[in-house]
Amino acid sequence: MTKSRMEAFSDGVFAVAITLLVFSLVVPDPARVGAGHLWSEMTARWPQFASYVVTFIIIGIMWVNHHAIFDRVATITRTLLYLNILLLLSIVVLPYATNLLAAFIISSSSANAHTAAAFYSGTMAVAGFAFSLIWMYLAAHRELLTESTDPSFARKELPRFGSGGLIYLLRVGIAFINAVACLVIHALLAAYYVLYRIEAHTGAPETVPLSVRTPDG
Amino acid sequence: MTKSRMEAFSDGVFAVAITLLVFSLVVPDPARVGAGHLWSEMTARWPQFASYVVTFIIIGIMWVNHHAIFDRVATITRTLLYLNILLLLSIVVLPYATNLLAAFIISSSSANAHTAAAFYSGTMAVAGFAFSLIWMYLAAHRELLTESTDPSFARKELPRFGSGGLIYLLRVGIAFINAVACLVIHALLAAYYVLYRIEAHTGAPETVPLSVRTPDG
Amino acid sequence: MTKSRMEAFSDGVFAVAITLLVFSLVVPDPARVGAGHLWSEMTARWPQFASYVVTFIIIGIMWVNHHAIFDRVATITRTLLYLNILLLLSIVVLPYATNLLAAFIISSSSANAHTAAAFYSGTMAVAGFAFSLIWMYLAAHRELLTESTDPSFARKELPRFGSGGLIYLLRVGIAFINAVACLVIHALLAAYYVLYRIEAHTGAPETVPLSVRTPDG
Amino acid sequence: MTKSRMEAFSDGVFAVAITLLVFSLVVPDPARVGAGHLWSEMTARWPQFASYVVTFIIIGIMWVNHHAIFDRVATITRTLLYLNILLLLSIVVLPYATNLLAAFIISSSSANAHTAAAFYSGTMAVAGFAFSLIWMYLAAHRELLTESTDPSFARKELPRFGSGGLIYLLRVGIAFINAVACLVIHALLAAYYVLYRIEAHTGAPETVPLSVRTPDG
Repeated sequence: MTKSRMEAFSDGVFAVAITLLVFSLVVPDPARVGAGHLWSEMTARWPQFASYVVTFIIIGIMWVNHHAIFDRVATITRTLLYLNILLLLSIVVLPYATNLLAAFIISSSSANAHTAAAFYSGTMAVAGFAFSLIWMYLAAHRELLTESTDPSFARKELPRFGSGGLIYLLRVGIAFINAVACLVIHALLAAYYVLYRIEAHTGAPETVPLSVRTPDG
Repeated sequence: MTKSRMEAFSDGVFAVAITLLVFSLVVPDPARVGAGHLWSEMTARWPQFASYVVTFIIIGIMWVNHHAIFDRVATITRTLLYLNILLLLSIVVLPYATNLLAAFIISSSSANAHTAAAFYSGTMAVAGFAFSLIWMYLAAHRELLTESTDPSFARKELPRFGSGGLIYLLRVGIAFINAVACLVIHALLAAYYVLYRIEAHTGAPETVPLSVRTPDG
Repeated sequence: MTKSRMEAFSDGVFAVAITLLVFSLVVPDPARVGAGHLWSEMTARWPQFASYVVTFIIIGIMWVNHHAIFDRVATITRTLLYLNILLLLSIVVLPYATNLLAAFIISSSSANAHTAAAFYSGTMAVAGFAFSLIWMYLAAHRELLTESTDPSFARKELPRFGSGGLIYLLRVGIAFINAVACLVIHALLAAYYVLYRIEAHTGAPETVPLSVRTPDG
Repeated sequence: MTKSRMEAFSDGVFAVAITLLVFSLVVPDPARVGAGHLWSEMTARWPQFASYVVTFIIIGIMWVNHHAIFDRVATITRTLLYLNILLLLSIVVLPYATNLLAAFIISSSSANAHTAAAFYSGTMAVAGFAFSLIWMYLAAHRELLTESTDPSFARKELPRFGSGGLIYLLRVGIAFINAVACLVIHALLAAYYVLYRIEAHTGAPETVPLSVRTPDG
């Protein structure tokens, strides 16, 4: 019961945050768009669409990960509740970070573009570290995991669930070199993650049900 | 469990996206509305109300379809999760596409009106293709369906669930002829869909429960 | 299953719509508020707070009613799904109608105030009629109700669930006389509804559980 | 059933309200930010970030409390539904109160800053009193609690669940002394609450599952 309400609340926050990303897409002001120029006006706003798609997929991946972690958890403690709130706190900042990136990524001031890309990557890094904290906490409290979970699961999957923060932190560095490159790297890693995680099961590929997948895949 | 969280997340995104459509209705600025002119000001904004109602019903239909598809699914795979995220990505764009259409459908520049209507129809087409991908994936992996599902169900219902993308794509073409006509066709097809799907059960009509409806209805 | 997803979706829409009411409260622009005048600026905006509170409680009541109706329903049909979507379509307009009312209720143009109050009451009336349609449909298809439901339940409760539309429609008339009076009547009827429905159980008052309450309770 | 829908609705409102806090973070206008000044522009907006984080954690705590209370409740009555709606009514005002605080906390007019901080604390106080009402109602109707709940639970936990309103009310007073101090106190008490509630279980600390925690834990 406790677990299902916590998941319902988290799913709600993920669902609202991912849907609020639509506000990074801004309708051009009809009074300022010349006759026949709407399409070029919209294509000039490609950073809005690019930021939207990339962030949407990353939040989607994070939701899948959240799901994959809490599927293993049998008992929710208060600490876990508050670590989860820390994670959600960073997820909810993402629509803001996405708008900021869309607004400044092609700024004439490259310093401003770097700032926006660094803030965007930094928010992702906070989310990644929150995942790591949840994971490390679970690794130290295996009695909270479901009985069917391999006891070595937590250690084996540490690179997967525990490394997110570090990987995102690297992108903060890239943000200071080139903001567009930073967004491209976010996109490529997201695509890699989606494709790799699927290809990892190519024996009987996509049909291995998530819920009985063994930890060593 | 996995399936129920995936449905809960999807229901959340559908619910938020359909509710955000309210932002296509913009309250007139009190400082700019002359005495006694509020009603005429609001009726002049009929594209906002028309776009709102049509999109609301279409998202409603898509939600019913989503529901009808996943009712048949017993096992969720990672591929299915990500195809679902692709579908949701296009659903979440719809409040933006609706605002865009409302802003430009009666633009003095017919080229801008065509662009807005084409973008609107194109977003619907992406959602339609995402449904088709989910359906084709399920048709190729029937072991994921519930046991009570007729094995020929996937093939028989392919026109229903697999054709959405193509039908919406046709409307992109119509958008380039006339934007208002495009919206009217969206409205008529939505009305037809709602009415036809009900009339299809006129034997013991609306009382056939959804959950035990046989695939060949 | 079908029923629970439909309720989850409806709960989601109700929850988002009721929360979006917060946008009827607009933060004063710091650059335009004189030193020490924030409080008077906020009290001058009382229509925002009044509209917010009244609409919040009315949506809350509607949600309780929705809940009370679907508690009796065992089987969801496609018709019921689409009638429910019609209901939700009007609920989602309420944040807009609330903003409109807040913006124009004390307009110097009483005609504009009447228009805003009439639109507000009219939106409520549409929601009320959607409830009536759902109720009349269920009264005609009693086989959809749960077994524990008294067969005469639908008829007995018709005044309660079937009259909402008409009662709201009366307020549209009042809106054309005085907009503030119209909002006050909405508030009084909501308060009466909340208090009356509780007092109706004064024998063993508020502790009669909702879920086993007899229809003629 | 009744209880689970009520919790689902409440979770939805909490989740949407906590996510709408992102709107207190406003992206600087690219046309007004000088080259290289985005970072300083963002740090000058620290009240937005501070208000966001503090309110997010407080709503998170309130959600945990809501959860802790209704975990003990076996039967939902109509009174409880409406008391819950009163609670949600104040929760939904919090994104507005947070924006107000962020906009005026460093106002050059200290009177305006006091007003904003007092409104913020006052909204919290209303939420706190709504919790107290729910709690006192349950203490008077113990037959609504689950069988496993210690009958003296309601009395023992009264300081915890019943005192919120008073404690928040004290901060309204502090708001009139110094607005920044008021926000700091909100932050410190939230941090204390999070840490204390965890430390309270230091015997076998964070691993005591919430759902079987004894009332005198």
